[in-house]
Amino acid sequence: MGIATATEQSPPKPNPKRLSGMAGFPVNDRLLRTCRRQPVDRTPIWLMRQAGRYMAEYRRLREKHTILEIIKTPELAVEVTLQPINAFDLDAAIIFADILPPLEAMGLSLDFIRGEGPVIHNPLRIAADVAALSVPDPRERLGFTLEAIRLVRRELASRVPLIGFSGAPFTLASYAIEGGATRNFVLTKSLMYNQPEMWHELMDKLAAMVGDYLKAQAEAGAQVLQLFDSWAGALGPADYCRYVLPYSRRVIQTATTSGVPVIHFGTGTSGMLEAIKKAGADVIGVDWRVDLADAWCRLGDDVAIQGNLDPVALFAPLHMLEKHVASILAQANGRPGHIFNLGHGILPQTPVEHVAALVYMVHEQSTA
Amino acid sequence: MGIATATEQSPPKPNPKRLSGMAGFPVNDRLLRTCRRQPVDRTPIWLMRQAGRYMAEYRRLREKHTILEIIKTPELAVEVTLQPINAFDLDAAIIFADILPPLEAMGLSLDFIRGEGPVIHNPLRIAADVAALSVPDPRERLGFTLEAIRLVRRELASRVPLIGFSGAPFTLASYAIEGGATRNFVLTKSLMYNQPEMWHELMDKLAAMVGDYLKAQAEAGAQVLQLFDSWAGALGPADYCRYVLPYSRRVIQTATTSGVPVIHFGTGTSGMLEAIKKAGADVIGVDWRVDLADAWCRLGDDVAIQGNLDPVALFAPLHMLEKHVASILAQANGRPGHIFNLGHGILPQTPVEHVAALVYMVHEQSTA
Repeated sequence: MGIATATEQSPPKPNPKRLSGMAGFPVNDRLLRTCRRQPVDRTPIWLMRQAGRYMAEYRRLREKHTILEIIKTPELAVEVTLQPINAFDLDAAIIFADILPPLEAMGLSLDFIRGEGPVIHNPLRIAADVAALSVPDPRERLGFTLEAIRLVRRELASRVPLIGFSGAPFTLASYAIEGGATRNFVLTKSLMYNQPEMWHELMDKLAAMVGDYLKAQAEAGAQVLQLFDSWAGALGPADYCRYVLPYSRRVIQTATTSGVPVIHFGTGTSGMLEAIKKAGADVIGVDWRVDLADAWCRLGDDVAIQGNLDPVALFAPLHMLEKHVASILAQANGRPGHIFNLGHGILPQTPVEHVAALVYMVHEQSTA
Repeated sequence: MGIATATEQSPPKPNPKRLSGMAGFPVNDRLLRTCRRQPVDRTPIWLMRQAGRYMAEYRRLREKHTILEIIKTPELAVEVTLQPINAFDLDAAIIFADILPPLEAMGLSLDFIRGEGPVIHNPLRIAADVAALSVPDPRERLGFTLEAIRLVRRELASRVPLIGFSGAPFTLASYAIEGGATRNFVLTKSLMYNQPEMWHELMDKLAAMVGDYLKAQAEAGAQVLQLFDSWAGALGPADYCRYVLPYSRRVIQTATTSGVPVIHFGTGTSGMLEAIKKAGADVIGVDWRVDLADAWCRLGDDVAIQGNLDPVALFAPLHMLEKHVASILAQANGRPGHIFNLGHGILPQTPVEHVAALVYMVHEQSTA
């Protein structure tokens, strides 16, 4: 399916009031063209967690609602999704959601605890726990996000494309097994090494769930999909290939049947980019721990790349931030297929005016 | 200085009782030869944090003493240093100490809090804090570790060589600035970007302190030195080269004036091995996030390499651990200059019998 089709696949039913308010915004298809490595006038930029705590608008809404309330109330999710689009000249919106709700849909008890992050109250311990996991239709159990996608598409009226996303099987497995964030992945890897049948059953179910969920998001109107395998870099290349790659590949195969491009993101993956490429995504996301030119050289020119500013570079003075941006763009060297982004999510303490400056710099410095 | 000289430089004055107990142990110089990329009969192995909580002997001692008490009481440090040497057929001892005491010597208040790890009670905040740091003679402020090194050398009687170590300037700076462990290094990098003069003054002092300290350890009898830049991988390659490399290089230059080989260790460095090599160590330590063959290909044959088993692989069943070992040895491919180690410190929950098995497997599988 071509870009034009992807852009049009869920035809926007514009709200006339908003549309008039957006007069003068042309259709921005930089991101979609870049995913396909087609030339664009300026390097597109969006930021992981661009709707988040660094924005006062978001913090105000969070005073009244929990993260899960916002995710599960389509009108609130729409509002938060649009906050950064209204504040900055970003080239894409990303639906406000989290990487973990698929686990809740499968039967795990998910919670976000202030200061601690995500918690799974009933982590997987024995084979029966994995056997008990269901793989429901995402339209039944994750319909709130699909509805939010439909609403955002209408509101955006093709102003910028909308990204859908999910956690990838390995990253989801690590939360499901550890019960939350982890430093050393001891329980996750121990299960992987010691109970391979249980591991493969779990990854099989997760791959089915995540593949269906991403596909449903594309059908609801998401024009690009990002698979967050945030913690894939906890594994060595051989373990990644054996225990994870087949499942991520299956997810990407299912997701791309919708004709929508897929971005495959991970951190700490500098040592196994070749393996990650084998999962088959259109775009590979890399963190800042590798030179973009080096990463692209290893990945080859037949794939687009997303990255890779250190999120903490946004805390630098602007003249220095400008040099970081220039360095990344110089490494991309004008090749079609570079999406500018951070190497991981934007941090809550980030100065908001530096975000505006970053978006401006990327566009200005990359003008053809 | 040749290997023979290094081995003999602090002539052991053996305790006859212990020596008789060690009859039959020949001088083991595998590690020293491997640091120089000379052929050996078997691949040498030691483990980061080999004296630690996974051993019952260590846990018993820790019931009575804090970490800092053990470090600062040479007799206790000797006892702990020798625990893994007496329990396993390891090819090196590493002096029991920590990467952070140089910060205490410079005027910071260091503590280890159970369940939390290291804490600096007076972290660096303003330029005056950095100006106030002293660079004392390590023989005055860190004499307890130097004395422990002398005692261990005597006890070991050349049975295996002894490794001395210190935290590297960047890793020390991150603890000094953040006040403890950190996930995102926001304060550290913010200082680096926003107050470059303060940063360079701090790194300058840390490089002087660490260089002197390592040199003093060699003079006390340490036969190999390891520089732990555990968190260097938090930086991108360009920032590493600009803000860190000159200081690590200076440390290594100072340390090697003693004629002792230096191992330069970091984690998450897969994307910048070439930059790390420029610091000039004899051996580069890599974590498990990169294939050893790939790392060595990028580093070149003129440097030895240490690594790189995932510490969690020790939780795998033995037949699987054996395959992990075989894979690493196959990648080293019999080249001189491979020190087998974990990619990071051994974890407290590690099954102790798997450690014995690992040492056996490495020796057996690598027998020429």
